[in-house]
Amino acid sequence: MEGTPKRPSNQELLLNEILQEALALPLSGEVANYIPALASVNPNQCGIAVANLDGQVHVAGDADVPFSIQSVSKVFGLALAMLRMGDDLWQRVHMEPSGQAFNSIVQLEWEHGIPRNPFINAGAIVVADTLVSHYSASKNALMSFVRGLADRPEIAVNQDVFLSEKQHGSRNAALAYLMKSFGNIEADVEDALDHYFYQCSIEMSCRDVARSLSFLANRGVQPHSGDTIVSRRDAHRINAIMQTSGMYDQSGEFAFEVGLPAKSGVGGGIVAIVPNYGVICAWSPRLNQYGNSCMGMYMITRLAEKLGLSVY
Amino acid sequence: MEGTPKRPSNQELLLNEILQEALALPLSGEVANYIPALASVNPNQCGIAVANLDGQVHVAGDADVPFSIQSVSKVFGLALAMLRMGDDLWQRVHMEPSGQAFNSIVQLEWEHGIPRNPFINAGAIVVADTLVSHYSASKNALMSFVRGLADRPEIAVNQDVFLSEKQHGSRNAALAYLMKSFGNIEADVEDALDHYFYQCSIEMSCRDVARSLSFLANRGVQPHSGDTIVSRRDAHRINAIMQTSGMYDQSGEFAFEVGLPAKSGVGGGIVAIVPNYGVICAWSPRLNQYGNSCMGMYMITRLAEKLGLSVY
Amino acid sequence: MEGTPKRPSNQELLLNEILQEALALPLSGEVANYIPALASVNPNQCGIAVANLDGQVHVAGDADVPFSIQSVSKVFGLALAMLRMGDDLWQRVHMEPSGQAFNSIVQLEWEHGIPRNPFINAGAIVVADTLVSHYSASKNALMSFVRGLADRPEIAVNQDVFLSEKQHGSRNAALAYLMKSFGNIEADVEDALDHYFYQCSIEMSCRDVARSLSFLANRGVQPHSGDTIVSRRDAHRINAIMQTSGMYDQSGEFAFEVGLPAKSGVGGGIVAIVPNYGVICAWSPRLNQYGNSCMGMYMITRLAEKLGLSVY
Amino acid sequence: MEGTPKRPSNQELLLNEILQEALALPLSGEVANYIPALASVNPNQCGIAVANLDGQVHVAGDADVPFSIQSVSKVFGLALAMLRMGDDLWQRVHMEPSGQAFNSIVQLEWEHGIPRNPFINAGAIVVADTLVSHYSASKNALMSFVRGLADRPEIAVNQDVFLSEKQHGSRNAALAYLMKSFGNIEADVEDALDHYFYQCSIEMSCRDVARSLSFLANRGVQPHSGDTIVSRRDAHRINAIMQTSGMYDQSGEFAFEVGLPAKSGVGGGIVAIVPNYGVICAWSPRLNQYGNSCMGMYMITRLAEKLGLSVY
Repeated sequence: MEGTPKRPSNQELLLNEILQEALALPLSGEVANYIPALASVNPNQCGIAVANLDGQVHVAGDADVPFSIQSVSKVFGLALAMLRMGDDLWQRVHMEPSGQAFNSIVQLEWEHGIPRNPFINAGAIVVADTLVSHYSASKNALMSFVRGLADRPEIAVNQDVFLSEKQHGSRNAALAYLMKSFGNIEADVEDALDHYFYQCSIEMSCRDVARSLSFLANRGVQPHSGDTIVSRRDAHRINAIMQTSGMYDQSGEFAFEVGLPAKSGVGGGIVAIVPNYGVICAWSPRLNQYGNSCMGMYMITRLAEKLGLSVY
Repeated sequence: MEGTPKRPSNQELLLNEILQEALALPLSGEVANYIPALASVNPNQCGIAVANLDGQVHVAGDADVPFSIQSVSKVFGLALAMLRMGDDLWQRVHMEPSGQAFNSIVQLEWEHGIPRNPFINAGAIVVADTLVSHYSASKNALMSFVRGLADRPEIAVNQDVFLSEKQHGSRNAALAYLMKSFGNIEADVEDALDHYFYQCSIEMSCRDVARSLSFLANRGVQPHSGDTIVSRRDAHRINAIMQTSGMYDQSGEFAFEVGLPAKSGVGGGIVAIVPNYGVICAWSPRLNQYGNSCMGMYMITRLAEKLGLSVY
Repeated sequence: MEGTPKRPSNQELLLNEILQEALALPLSGEVANYIPALASVNPNQCGIAVANLDGQVHVAGDADVPFSIQSVSKVFGLALAMLRMGDDLWQRVHMEPSGQAFNSIVQLEWEHGIPRNPFINAGAIVVADTLVSHYSASKNALMSFVRGLADRPEIAVNQDVFLSEKQHGSRNAALAYLMKSFGNIEADVEDALDHYFYQCSIEMSCRDVARSLSFLANRGVQPHSGDTIVSRRDAHRINAIMQTSGMYDQSGEFAFEVGLPAKSGVGGGIVAIVPNYGVICAWSPRLNQYGNSCMGMYMITRLAEKLGLSVY
Repeated sequence: MEGTPKRPSNQELLLNEILQEALALPLSGEVANYIPALASVNPNQCGIAVANLDGQVHVAGDADVPFSIQSVSKVFGLALAMLRMGDDLWQRVHMEPSGQAFNSIVQLEWEHGIPRNPFINAGAIVVADTLVSHYSASKNALMSFVRGLADRPEIAVNQDVFLSEKQHGSRNAALAYLMKSFGNIEADVEDALDHYFYQCSIEMSCRDVARSLSFLANRGVQPHSGDTIVSRRDAHRINAIMQTSGMYDQSGEFAFEVGLPAKSGVGGGIVAIVPNYGVICAWSPRLNQYGNSCMGMYMITRLAEKLGLSVY
């Protein structure tokens, strides 16, 4: 077949069509600017990838450009901690939606240092703390896990982002010390935060993210390798937490309008799970008022509508 | 076929098996006792019904005994208000999960009188207010809607419960007056509360509830009548709100363990929607610490496990 | 002495000087406008009165113009309830400063319906409730008490203000119903609120207010009559609550800058107690961001500085 | 007069009488036990000292035993920061009472990292931060200030307590990092906390504390030296903050029952200022539920009653 260009699949045609719609929208939103390393990204990049359960990945736009996955990393951290800790994890972090950002610190106070769920920062810091306590080298353990899932040993952390996160991490330090005062951080606060900021600084492409989390759409089994990553039950559980708590204070609206479990990061990435179908990852750096990618939201919403992907 | 007893279906055998398991559990939980009319119910009653999309209803136990549907009525109120108001409704109530009960009143303060979602009391009172404002006789309108959905003109309100709710409704009055002070109650506070307490006092059986809400599992179309009750999109949306916010402060855990949209009431009823499959309603009066029926939770969880009903 | 005009005292010269300074300030602040009846007052009025312990009252400006005393009435209500209830009152309302306005409703929630002190609205509503419960005609009882203290039977309620308060009282109703839900309102909520709004609508002049509260500067004994109104201990206690909680969220700053127990109202009146010296009442309708009279604050601050009146 | 024992003054007789009353009370309260170094103190110690404006100090009981002054040190830190910073200090910390302990962290959130007053921990940490930023060696500067005020170069920090405070300081670290995230900590958080814990660990006797703060009862001038420590205005201001905010969540009650500016510490010390009269310091380690010394409260209350010391 040498010389014959690969014909785009129907799904790629659809992804490209939706990508063009997104790019044609009036520009809105702002790139995350709380750290310089994130603020300097080219804001006009936009990509989408869909990993199907047959192992194929369809893409459009900048789907192979690595971006800072930020809070999308909370899914990887959670999966690894569930594997390592079993149900004991749920003694230290709840699985309830959290209400508004404003309340995060008062809820910690009210609930004696137990975060509402693993996808708010406080909860992800507890998850990081369990990894630090249960692995001799938790950062390596997580990187191995992520690289294995994506089948891409090149995946790495952006050191500039990592250092910048640590320098601007006072609010997360406040959450961690408050939990420490309630006895819900076992390791040194500095070590738990170090792991947390490290995982936030991982860079992956849309293709990487969609492929690596395919097991969540497939009852725990990674389609391209056949490996069981987590139990069927735990795959369902991770999806459930993504559904109720994955999109910051727009989680309810996302369930309402799109109807898929999803997790977002301030790097502009959004991953959505379509049970028994596949995983979508969209990325574009401009964020709406809730911290979710404007174009990412648009593309996933359109794709779910067009293909009737809602779980409801 | 006279003289031939109807043979139980396989599904009824399964429902009965699960019901027996539930009845054999160590007793736990307490009947709601904030009003005398609820406290006097026989606590050992237990029933379950599954309405399938072919119009059949399978039952076990006390599935035909009318009980006080309480907050399950919020689903009916919401559906009617969505029909009547369209998307304007969402200017007055949000669709985000609410965090803890403790915060309900401070969140109203913080968000200027806009409740987090229609399934917390404040949100349901706003929904009641829209019905009062848009219908000349909102209580009749709601009863007609419910009776029509269930195809059962006998469905009625328990007057003792209704009066008792009004007498013990100070906290709901506080929420309503706070919203009024922000301009988010249009009618007289007394009228909005009157409607709200009225709908809480409706009595229905498991069979009634399951049948009446079948359209939510069927993209908005009532299976037994073929009538389109709400749009496909609105059916999905109601399910989404049930998923994130329907089970009080156990909503996240229910999504996590069961994976179905559901709504609970302190009368001991729980309704769960299984998209493209049917509707389950379980009832038993003893409540756990979150206000959800202990045996009801058990039966729905077991049924979902055995039949693999999770949306994830 | 007929025909001989009274010569102004030195104190009146000082009061006039300070009044002129206040009138010469750049205009700032806004008249309370949450009810029309208050918004229509002439905003440029300004008066001050000092009642000394020898029974003399020195005045300047509009010191004889009746104004809506609003929250200044909380001092009268409290004194009457302390007389009637004794120390039992303090089971139902605390005596601690309250922090910010924002928290008033969450603090009620957190402290199970017991208000922080009698000078926040929730606390004054509890005080009103005790009066309603302990007097067959609590409004008459309070009016008799106030008229007797001022030795002025003409003192009356402004009916327009009273009705207007009731119509715009949703937030106060929310507080009252929340306390009712905790069992801390004994009477009907409507009756407690009726008394509360009634006492807020009393009209008195600066001279009236200063004279009527002279007993607080004189260990409980009314100077002009020699009557013991409250015990020395209770006079001290009322002053203490005024010091920590009398000036809304500017109470700390007022103690810091002026050093006198005081109580303010949104009608523009401020009364300050100078132990063993006398009582100052200043009035002018324009309010600062905290709800305290701009010119009133200025005049009392200046007078306290010039005469060295701080209790510290 | 050699050989003639000094006759106790009338005031010493009174102090001893009150001390005996306190010792005869049924034991109540618990020694602070959040750090081992404090928990090991002999709980039955009890002392009182009164420094009069003539320079004399009258004492009873263990008035010369050094104790951990803990939060009483906030008065020294505040006075030094007011001297060094002038009114700029009040841009970074307010002067309003704080409401309940529960709210401390949410109030910081709500008011963007500006603490309510310098006597809650968050406020004292900001004060510590200003000292760290304005002195090359802030801990030495504070020790010099305190030793000079007391005229006692021997005053020192208990190193065990200091290290123990640092090890158990997670909650204070949480407050500090939260303020840092709002830009209201200038130095490194670790340095501000180091200074803060250091000043809490100073040990002084009742006599030391009463003498050293005598300037607050004397319009800013230290009686025994004649030195002006702070302006008259600033002495009044410090007293005012002590009055509204010095006794934790019992500040209002203390103003109500005793009527004196005061500051308490969890080491069991309480200092009360009697303007134009003198300074009282009482100490005994057992604390009531608010963190105030049970016997200390008793002795100061009795003395104020017997001598009529209330400012009201």
